[in-house]
Amino acid sequence: MAGDSQGAIDFYFDFSSPYGYFAAARIDALAAKYGRTVNWHPLLLGVVFKITGGQPLPMVPLKGDYVYRDFERCARFYNIPYARPDVFPIPTQLAARAMLWVQEHLGAEKGVQFAKAVYAAYFVDGKTITEAEVLIPLATRLGIDGAAMIDGANSEPVKAKMKVAMEEAVERKVFGSPFVIADGEPFWGVDRFDQLEHFLKHGKL
Amino acid sequence: MAGDSQGAIDFYFDFSSPYGYFAAARIDALAAKYGRTVNWHPLLLGVVFKITGGQPLPMVPLKGDYVYRDFERCARFYNIPYARPDVFPIPTQLAARAMLWVQEHLGAEKGVQFAKAVYAAYFVDGKTITEAEVLIPLATRLGIDGAAMIDGANSEPVKAKMKVAMEEAVERKVFGSPFVIADGEPFWGVDRFDQLEHFLKHGKL
Repeated sequence: MAGDSQGAIDFYFDFSSPYGYFAAARIDALAAKYGRTVNWHPLLLGVVFKITGGQPLPMVPLKGDYVYRDFERCARFYNIPYARPDVFPIPTQLAARAMLWVQEHLGAEKGVQFAKAVYAAYFVDGKTITEAEVLIPLATRLGIDGAAMIDGANSEPVKAKMKVAMEEAVERKVFGSPFVIADGEPFWGVDRFDQLEHFLKHGKL
Repeated sequence: MAGDSQGAIDFYFDFSSPYGYFAAARIDALAAKYGRTVNWHPLLLGVVFKITGGQPLPMVPLKGDYVYRDFERCARFYNIPYARPDVFPIPTQLAARAMLWVQEHLGAEKGVQFAKAVYAAYFVDGKTITEAEVLIPLATRLGIDGAAMIDGANSEPVKAKMKVAMEEAVERKVFGSPFVIADGEPFWGVDRFDQLEHFLKHGKL
């Protein structure tokens, strides 16, 4: 889907990434301010980390305590609801593939609604979004057939689609979450949204 | 030196860190705006990386091109002179120990002047600040006895002091450059200066 809309910007995020969650709360309004739309791409950071040698932030020595503190401070600074989940990080394949299915069958906008519902379930309500039983009611509330969505998420075609999406992301050197590409210009991190905005406003940085 | 001045904030930086350089250009003015002073602490990221398993940014797969681009964009965004050095990253033990010697013998302010001169030599003029022959004339221009400084930097007492300083930094969980600690609150990255400012202004975040 990358680059398929004129003027659209590409937004990559992992459902287990707090910074991705903060970015998800801000990206559409930021883009709209400059007449842009957003293509939402669920990402699997685990696949990326196999290439970069990265590891989940809380597992890095010295850094663990800091990142939890930073998540909470960023949430307050950006004024976004956030509660530290009991289990973090978590595998996000099922939620990511469910989103691909929603995008394919119900369109991009429903996909965004689903993504925001998944993020809120995890980072506000502390629900274990790894599980179908958690994702199904979220889908239902959005008018999505949850059982069909989970069947789709676990189907070979959607798994293959996820694999291709990750290959494309890696090809574009997407190495973190959130990651935005606007007119070929890459931005990593919600803390680069000030520079992203400058770029969208002035056409350069 | 950490915490030895009432109201002072602690600023840690590695001379090979572009983000440390950007922070060095901004930290004193930011602190002064809120009636704070700054204790400058040269840091050896190599020592930290042995603990965190980190590696210099350009060596991370997928991330290499991005970080050079980000250095240049940040410089433009913050309006700070910057030219990509031919050799990057570089070992910074000599410059860091030279700064400790300057701080001890000529005071904190001269130490800051020296640090800014070293950063400019590396990130503006592209000089190899690993070498005594490069550091000596920088010192001379600041009225520092360059030969005495290099002798001091290579002396056992200053090496021991550097070691203790790094142990203290690690004890305080300083894991990157730049790193600021204000009233016990840690901030990693020049991209957290907006939050640091909010904290200095409101006393909380």
